[in-house]
Amino acid sequence: MKGSIPQGTIDRMTLYKRYLENLLSEDSHRQHITSSELGRETRFSPAVVRRDLSCLGQLGQRKVGYRTDDLYDTINKAMGLDKAWEVALVGAGNLGKALAVYQGFKKLGFKVVSIFDNDKSKIGRSWKGIKIRDIRYMPEIIRRRKIKIAIIAVPFNFAQEIADLLIKSGIKAILNLAPSRLTVPDNIKLRSVDLAVKLENLSYLLARDKV
Amino acid sequence: MKGSIPQGTIDRMTLYKRYLENLLSEDSHRQHITSSELGRETRFSPAVVRRDLSCLGQLGQRKVGYRTDDLYDTINKAMGLDKAWEVALVGAGNLGKALAVYQGFKKLGFKVVSIFDNDKSKIGRSWKGIKIRDIRYMPEIIRRRKIKIAIIAVPFNFAQEIADLLIKSGIKAILNLAPSRLTVPDNIKLRSVDLAVKLENLSYLLARDKV
Repeated sequence: MKGSIPQGTIDRMTLYKRYLENLLSEDSHRQHITSSELGRETRFSPAVVRRDLSCLGQLGQRKVGYRTDDLYDTINKAMGLDKAWEVALVGAGNLGKALAVYQGFKKLGFKVVSIFDNDKSKIGRSWKGIKIRDIRYMPEIIRRRKIKIAIIAVPFNFAQEIADLLIKSGIKAILNLAPSRLTVPDNIKLRSVDLAVKLENLSYLLARDKV
Repeated sequence: MKGSIPQGTIDRMTLYKRYLENLLSEDSHRQHITSSELGRETRFSPAVVRRDLSCLGQLGQRKVGYRTDDLYDTINKAMGLDKAWEVALVGAGNLGKALAVYQGFKKLGFKVVSIFDNDKSKIGRSWKGIKIRDIRYMPEIIRRRKIKIAIIAVPFNFAQEIADLLIKSGIKAILNLAPSRLTVPDNIKLRSVDLAVKLENLSYLLARDKV
């Protein structure tokens, strides 16, 4: 892999990978795929696909295309998905529960191995075999297990405090699902998803147009 | 409300609203709030807050600030959240289930009233009192109930087909959670969330930096 891959390319890699995965799961999957085909299926132009895949090195063959399985493996490796990531989940509320039991993460290679909360009524319970632990043990457990990725699913007014504590405990990447903007040091990777913002965007647009 | 509110402002409105909601739920909540305070709590500059709130009309009072309850109600109304929205959920897989039972949507004013799938083993079951219906009844039910918002949580290779069918059935706004890019007509509101893209972004960045 040559150096750093641009953000847009990284985002698209997930979509290419998903299509390849689907293709490989079919009994009669073709051994090769062209950039045109990959583009058509993921709705990007063949030129964009070719440019993106060139970030992975010299892969395709003129007129033949890319070997489906090789391309899949190469993308997976470049994306750091050739190994499973252990993930800590903070916040055992409704959203936390939805995510902890969501098998989709595991399929992607992200395994929730620890869940933390400060609610006495939740501590000690188990979800899918993972015990909810008291948040005061969080720093110790994260350090001991060398967990690098955490998902924050706490109420918005605790999110920053939790992020600070996670970072102090050795977390290097955060997926923030709390409806709150976080401030983190430059070396910490942060991605945020706010479902409320997306849904309220839709209701605003519908109300504005009086649909 | 004067005309159309810019996208960034709409996004921030959700965050302002969340803070106000929290404030109003406290017993001793203050009757007024200033743009500086709202900015500090949501991490935007007071100037941004003032400009955003000016989209809602003449609201604040110099030196006193905004009446907390009025501001909350005004934002809610502008965002189309002064009424409850009925939502159709398509896809009763893991992600669909996580969302259907997620109480957070309901709290925001979005109530999942119908769930559809094509999997015979799921059709007829109930989640939180909502029966999973055969997708072939989807157009009829959406039309009859006049549902305007749908959440797509199907495998990526069915997402476009489902979107087309939803739009034909009268859906005006789609929250797409399938890891697939959708093409919709200009008058249809579309927002997408791809958790896989966000998580794989993090793994890429960690792998790149050899964390």
